[in-house]
Amino acid sequence: MKYAPKEEINARIEKLKVLMERASLDGAFFHYKIDYYYLTGTMQDCLLFVPLDGEPLLFVKREISRARRESPLVNLISYRSIKDIPQHVKPMKRIGMQLDVIPYNDVLRFKGIMGNVELVDCSPLTKEIRKHKSPFEIGLMEKAAEIGKKVYATIPELLREGVAEIEVGGQMEAYAKSLGHEGLLRVRSLNYEAYTWHILSGRTGSIVSQSDSPMGGLGLSPAFPVGASFKKIRKNEPILVDFGICYHGYQVDQTRMYAIGSMPEIFVKAYDVCKEIHDRVLDKVTEGYTSKELFEYSKELGDKFGYGDHYLGYKPHKVRFLGHGIGIELAELPFIAATHTYPIEEGAVFAIEPKMVFPGKGSCGYENTVHYTNGKCRIITDIDDSIIIV
Amino acid sequence: MKYAPKEEINARIEKLKVLMERASLDGAFFHYKIDYYYLTGTMQDCLLFVPLDGEPLLFVKREISRARRESPLVNLISYRSIKDIPQHVKPMKRIGMQLDVIPYNDVLRFKGIMGNVELVDCSPLTKEIRKHKSPFEIGLMEKAAEIGKKVYATIPELLREGVAEIEVGGQMEAYAKSLGHEGLLRVRSLNYEAYTWHILSGRTGSIVSQSDSPMGGLGLSPAFPVGASFKKIRKNEPILVDFGICYHGYQVDQTRMYAIGSMPEIFVKAYDVCKEIHDRVLDKVTEGYTSKELFEYSKELGDKFGYGDHYLGYKPHKVRFLGHGIGIELAELPFIAATHTYPIEEGAVFAIEPKMVFPGKGSCGYENTVHYTNGKCRIITDIDDSIIIV
Repeated sequence: MKYAPKEEINARIEKLKVLMERASLDGAFFHYKIDYYYLTGTMQDCLLFVPLDGEPLLFVKREISRARRESPLVNLISYRSIKDIPQHVKPMKRIGMQLDVIPYNDVLRFKGIMGNVELVDCSPLTKEIRKHKSPFEIGLMEKAAEIGKKVYATIPELLREGVAEIEVGGQMEAYAKSLGHEGLLRVRSLNYEAYTWHILSGRTGSIVSQSDSPMGGLGLSPAFPVGASFKKIRKNEPILVDFGICYHGYQVDQTRMYAIGSMPEIFVKAYDVCKEIHDRVLDKVTEGYTSKELFEYSKELGDKFGYGDHYLGYKPHKVRFLGHGIGIELAELPFIAATHTYPIEEGAVFAIEPKMVFPGKGSCGYENTVHYTNGKCRIITDIDDSIIIV
Repeated sequence: MKYAPKEEINARIEKLKVLMERASLDGAFFHYKIDYYYLTGTMQDCLLFVPLDGEPLLFVKREISRARRESPLVNLISYRSIKDIPQHVKPMKRIGMQLDVIPYNDVLRFKGIMGNVELVDCSPLTKEIRKHKSPFEIGLMEKAAEIGKKVYATIPELLREGVAEIEVGGQMEAYAKSLGHEGLLRVRSLNYEAYTWHILSGRTGSIVSQSDSPMGGLGLSPAFPVGASFKKIRKNEPILVDFGICYHGYQVDQTRMYAIGSMPEIFVKAYDVCKEIHDRVLDKVTEGYTSKELFEYSKELGDKFGYGDHYLGYKPHKVRFLGHGIGIELAELPFIAATHTYPIEEGAVFAIEPKMVFPGKGSCGYENTVHYTNGKCRIITDIDDSIIIV
């Protein structure tokens, strides 16, 4: 197991404090584990307090000896209830709390215990600093990509006529886990659960579902109506494999296309267009286009190549994003989307996924996880990008 | 795919309305998908409104044609933003909302849109009615158990000296998925993620982690510090397999013990005691003991048989529950726990899991999912209950 080095954690906390000062916060609490993992290195059952002045306090419910091993923070306090918290912190006026994710009742209870304080949502602060990946983080993402590469290399062995999508997904996942994939992908959402087994073949590739994706897939039941299904994979249909990997909490996302026998011509052409859009948009990232400009430019390309009715889904189910930042959450800053106006900054890691959907027939797409560094877009998920025919 | 019948959904809504009237609610909103799946039959991206008087309205963001197929409700309305909601509902004074799970910011935003209303947490209402499982629900849980039985039957083939715990977990999961297991287990928690791959061998069975479990396991990294790990399974050590299955959203939970070569004597004896406690506690369920009494009784038995230091964990990591209701959430009413005072009611389904932990050596346990019906405890997860030696 790799633990986050002390310098890494210290640097993150220092960046946070700069933003806290700017937001006039006296301190900030982190109840949600995604962010306290980022700021501490541990996902034990904890509650992190970062004062504007002074050392962070990590309150640990369970299990403190593991938290000590995993986190380089020095002030760890064993606690049983949030009622124990106030005695350890100085009186404050404005405190940060993750109001975008913590349930309403829990916020009220915490506020009741903390007394007369003003609560401010501090999630934008961690989202902001998480945008820029450190070399340590990039190392973990490269390891995730290495696992992904090995897993994708087994797909040709798994594909045979009559195999169900879910069988392929399950076998990929089993192998990925044996290499260190943690099984879960994580998203900051009450209702959306990310999953790795997004294997769609032929018409299931054109089925839309609850997820904000051009193609949701059929899934296994009304209780899990997305991703791989019991549909049997047939010859000569497009097979889209969009399989995320998670290593030490860090995710990479990628999509490649497969077929048994042959790939129908419309998907061969559409896939080429997806790759073309992918490449051209990355050029524009380098040129400093904003998120919105990148998205609009990609749509123009889709139209220009004659794929306006298929690009990023069909009407009325088109999605309004082409890419999403990725790290300890599957979708984080920066996005490449219709409503985001910032440029892509140095150190960002994002997944870019041009996809085309043909109603009733299926879909195709191409996706990579990309690191924008030194003014260049470097593809982390460097898997063979040709259509694989088995 | 099985869809919830109209009578089933109508009966659930009627039960809800009785509790709503008792709570003086004019209407209730369900944003969290676990409960609106229960009340509608669909997990598409929706928002359910149940007025005290009149028909439920299901607002569907994505994808309405699937929601129509999956849900027998008749009033489905396509919507884009919660701003669209007020025009469809009459003015109300007291409305229910799932304040235990919906993020603080989202509640405030919704309240702003709904105007001058009093918000009341309505999650206790659905938790209450979900306690009693219908024949339709039991059918789905029996199907989940059937999948579990097949999956457990493959364990002897998967166990060999030197195989990593996570390899066994991954293979079990791949097979389970090919039979309809949905991959995810669901819990009502911000920070705890349920998972199926809880395969612990030898000393990893005595490692405690963030989870509220006598044994958490080592896991794969600080970002997923629970469950199966890269530890290689050896001869003559206890192998605990606690693997949940989810079918159409309904879960079953079960634990059995395995060993390669032979099982050390202390675990053979402790396992017998676990089974004895399991059986005797179920007798007391039938006799009408309350949750707390059942829990205390089981502790007395643990002490009496000489396992006070091991039963449900070792100090200070002992857990304070022996069982948990199970259904569309892995942990729901009724619990068998130190702080719960109700008796187990007709129609309940719960998992009961006496477990013993021996620091540094490992653990053992026995667990079944049980249906309490017609005054009897019927074991749904009817897998061979002997220690399996391979």
